Amino acid sequence: MRHARFTSGGKVLAGRVEGRSIIDAGGNAYGTDDITWLPPVEPSKIVGLVLNYREHADELGLKTGEGPIPFFKPPSSLTGHLTPIVYPAGATHVHYEAELAVVIGRACRRTGREDAMEHVGGYTIANDVTARDFITNTFRPPVKAKCFDTFLPLGPWMVDAADIADASSLSIETRVNGRVVQEGNTSMFVHSIPEVIEFLSGFMTLLPGDVILTGTPRGISRIVPGDIVEIAVGGIGTLSNTVTAEGGTVPES
Amino acid sequence: MRHARFTSGGKVLAGRVEGRSIIDAGGNAYGTDDITWLPPVEPSKIVGLVLNYREHADELGLKTGEGPIPFFKPPSSLTGHLTPIVYPAGATHVHYEAELAVVIGRACRRTGREDAMEHVGGYTIANDVTARDFITNTFRPPVKAKCFDTFLPLGPWMVDAADIADASSLSIETRVNGRVVQEGNTSMFVHSIPEVIEFLSGFMTLLPGDVILTGTPRGISRIVPGDIVEIAVGGIGTLSNTVTAEGGTVPES
Repeated sequence: MRHARFTSGGKVLAGRVEGRSIIDAGGNAYGTDDITWLPPVEPSKIVGLVLNYREHADELGLKTGEGPIPFFKPPSSLTGHLTPIVYPAGATHVHYEAELAVVIGRACRRTGREDAMEHVGGYTIANDVTARDFITNTFRPPVKAKCFDTFLPLGPWMVDAADIADASSLSIETRVNGRVVQEGNTSMFVHSIPEVIEFLSGFMTLLPGDVILTGTPRGISRIVPGDIVEIAVGGIGTLSNTVTAEGGTVPES
Repeated sequence: MRHARFTSGGKVLAGRVEGRSIIDAGGNAYGTDDITWLPPVEPSKIVGLVLNYREHADELGLKTGEGPIPFFKPPSSLTGHLTPIVYPAGATHVHYEAELAVVIGRACRRTGREDAMEHVGGYTIANDVTARDFITNTFRPPVKAKCFDTFLPLGPWMVDAADIADASSLSIETRVNGRVVQEGNTSMFVHSIPEVIEFLSGFMTLLPGDVILTGTPRGISRIVPGDIVEIAVGGIGTLSNTVTAEGGTVPES
């Protein structure tokens, strides 16, 4: 089943997606063209992973870690399917990063990799937008670079874990203005989903709705205002967002 | 006014603190000895600052940044006054870090330093507990080191901003088992509160309840299970927590 959150007539609603309709708990149907998509979950925390595809580490000239290397994005960076990514005034090197997002279904703490998948509630698609302009010192957490408002499109919906036979063999493809710019497969993870859950739950409780961004494959490149970024993940769907300039400012290249 | 959140009889409650009582919205009084303290706010994000007191940077042999250097702690690391700090199995160098915590009262985005203080709702006390064992690579965000469950005692209460005449001249004192181990004053900030709010709101929306940890002064040292850590901040109160070993394990020194 595909679960969406959305607004219609100023109200925040949730429901299951069936074709071009979303059916809420009361059985009311909303056309997908008539609603505004929200991120499908409301996480208390969002954990990203640095360099979780070896070929992406290679393209950045960086080494992968011995264990998963986490960072946080705040809930304020979230935005939904078909909403704009706002290109910050003053930025010139903003990149998309296509990612499979894991949604926690049941709380876990000190959960071993063998039991980890029982705690996954579902999957969705993320764009871990990053303004490389602000990665001026790799000694520091990439907070400004990754945490602008709208720098985390998530959606369109969450697919139940039960409906994804094998999350470690999903295709990932990014298209900018219709042109394929990034292709990968979750089979190329450096650290598997169970390994990442074991690592993270080893120090902090993962709560229902929490999101783990599993890293981006090789092939990142610059986007500019006006671009349409689509990320397709096999078995889940396509997340699409248009890039708009903050306050109408267009960055110089 | 001092605002607290707490549990009593299994219910989550909130009220104002008057002497040794907490009065809820319905006028019911609860003795402070009869309740369990919760963190006074429920932040959507918690931003810490690296090296915001020059003498603390000196003691770590590190340089302060040209601008504020932020990192995140997740809500799952929060714990209340008089609750235990759980010393992780396998850790040996866990440090307290006494801090003034700023609570956002009104949302802000791209707010200049001249207007920043209008967005502060109040202040509380934080202990930014850190397991230095896990800072193995300063190239990386200090996620594991700072984000264990219970590594962010916060409280006992939030004091309204209107009741603090000058947040940039508050004394901070840490006592471990009654002995003073850390002394500072918020007048020694490298980056002031208005400057930090200007910087953070320059890229992300700060929401009501969000917490900014303003950094720790000089004088951090190791704590071990059995220790009682008290942090007193002038005009606010004293946050007290006991350190307990995870699963009864006592770390080797």
